[in-house]
Amino acid sequence: MPERPLILVTNDDGIFAPGIRALTEEMLAFGRVLVVAPDKPQSAMGHAITIHSFLRLHQVDQVAGAEAWSCSGTPVDCVKLAIYKLLDGRKPDLLVSGINHGANISINVLYSGTMSAAVEGAMEGIPSIGFSLMDHSIEADFSQVRPVVRNVVANALQHGMAQGICLNVNVPKGSGVPLKGMRVCRQAKANWEDEFETRHDPGGKEYYWLRGEFRGQDHGEDTDLWAVENGYVSIVPTQYDMTAHHAIAELNTWRHEVG
Amino acid sequence: MPERPLILVTNDDGIFAPGIRALTEEMLAFGRVLVVAPDKPQSAMGHAITIHSFLRLHQVDQVAGAEAWSCSGTPVDCVKLAIYKLLDGRKPDLLVSGINHGANISINVLYSGTMSAAVEGAMEGIPSIGFSLMDHSIEADFSQVRPVVRNVVANALQHGMAQGICLNVNVPKGSGVPLKGMRVCRQAKANWEDEFETRHDPGGKEYYWLRGEFRGQDHGEDTDLWAVENGYVSIVPTQYDMTAHHAIAELNTWRHEVG
Repeated sequence: MPERPLILVTNDDGIFAPGIRALTEEMLAFGRVLVVAPDKPQSAMGHAITIHSFLRLHQVDQVAGAEAWSCSGTPVDCVKLAIYKLLDGRKPDLLVSGINHGANISINVLYSGTMSAAVEGAMEGIPSIGFSLMDHSIEADFSQVRPVVRNVVANALQHGMAQGICLNVNVPKGSGVPLKGMRVCRQAKANWEDEFETRHDPGGKEYYWLRGEFRGQDHGEDTDLWAVENGYVSIVPTQYDMTAHHAIAELNTWRHEVG
Repeated sequence: MPERPLILVTNDDGIFAPGIRALTEEMLAFGRVLVVAPDKPQSAMGHAITIHSFLRLHQVDQVAGAEAWSCSGTPVDCVKLAIYKLLDGRKPDLLVSGINHGANISINVLYSGTMSAAVEGAMEGIPSIGFSLMDHSIEADFSQVRPVVRNVVANALQHGMAQGICLNVNVPKGSGVPLKGMRVCRQAKANWEDEFETRHDPGGKEYYWLRGEFRGQDHGEDTDLWAVENGYVSIVPTQYDMTAHHAIAELNTWRHEVG
């Protein structure tokens, strides 16, 4: 009998978030599960890694019955520590990240710790999937996400994934309405209109809280933004070649001089 | 007489790094300069932003004669605070990041705080350029980088840059040998072979330091890796659509079910 697949589970909301518990529960039906996740919330940590400090791992009570470790670092640190410390360099057969409490559509893939962990998995050659529910609440209801997780994971294990690709899966908040289906999408164009809320500490000194407003800038119906706004689950195949290939010819017209 | 361009300078090595001083000195010939940089080293912070804590700005002594602020957050936080707090939403005409003490070629664009600041600039619609010298030393010699900076910035101000594009410029360590020229490149395929060095604290508990080895996986002569290994400055036009467009058709063959 073939060995059951080894599945690495991580997230950015921290190891005690309900979302990672739900994801781990679902993964136990597919294989052996190792959970390595941050010991505190690490949302919006992007692809940060810890190089100016050391890292700790701490074995915690099982998550949903699976072996689980908390890590003092970022989501990407968790992936590296899982592979190169806990698994001695063995690559898991699948990496899943989430279920994130909150959306990771459009350009948020760059800020997202959930998705950066999945991208790191792709860099390691591991089929990797990030799952996010568009509900920031700690009490978010994951019941509509679970069958989506089961379907996408079953597909990924059956079909495999192209080298260097991971998936960014976003599920709209249910609110009692059934999901309309799933759509394979591209990342929508958008921007953040930021502002900083200024406050004063007891000593009178200013400090600032970031408050941004997400602005979709894309009218395409093939985007993750359109999908989730219209009741569909979005799946964006995601890669990490950031080269603007279409800009190379134009840049070659510049007069380049080195001295 | 037209107003001189407003140039925002940032980095990830921190506001007191020699590299940002050299960059600021060069920028003063091109326009008015505002420096906003981290108050401590923020290398490898990727596209992280600070959302679980507040941010501080602190006006410091001028850097090379330019108005300068240190920021308690990440390089991307610096860009957001510069635009939305210090400039009241006005976009600078150019953003430059660096000069980084160390290379940012290939997949390191994802880990790099220097380049993430430039990518954030591109997201804001600002022509943005990250400069890196392949020498981690605090005493790195930037004399060969300076004419490169002047040339690329002059080109960028003259030609402008396509919406959503920034540049990733890497300069090989000189070691007395003249640079051969500049090459417009794509991001090389590569991976990190990581390991963790295990140590024990005085109480006997384990902790880990990340030690990675960069492995080029690309034999193309059109990559940034090839360029810098062969004595050329590399320029990679960089964008932030992470969609794996080529994978969409394949994913549409999957049997997607939401319940």
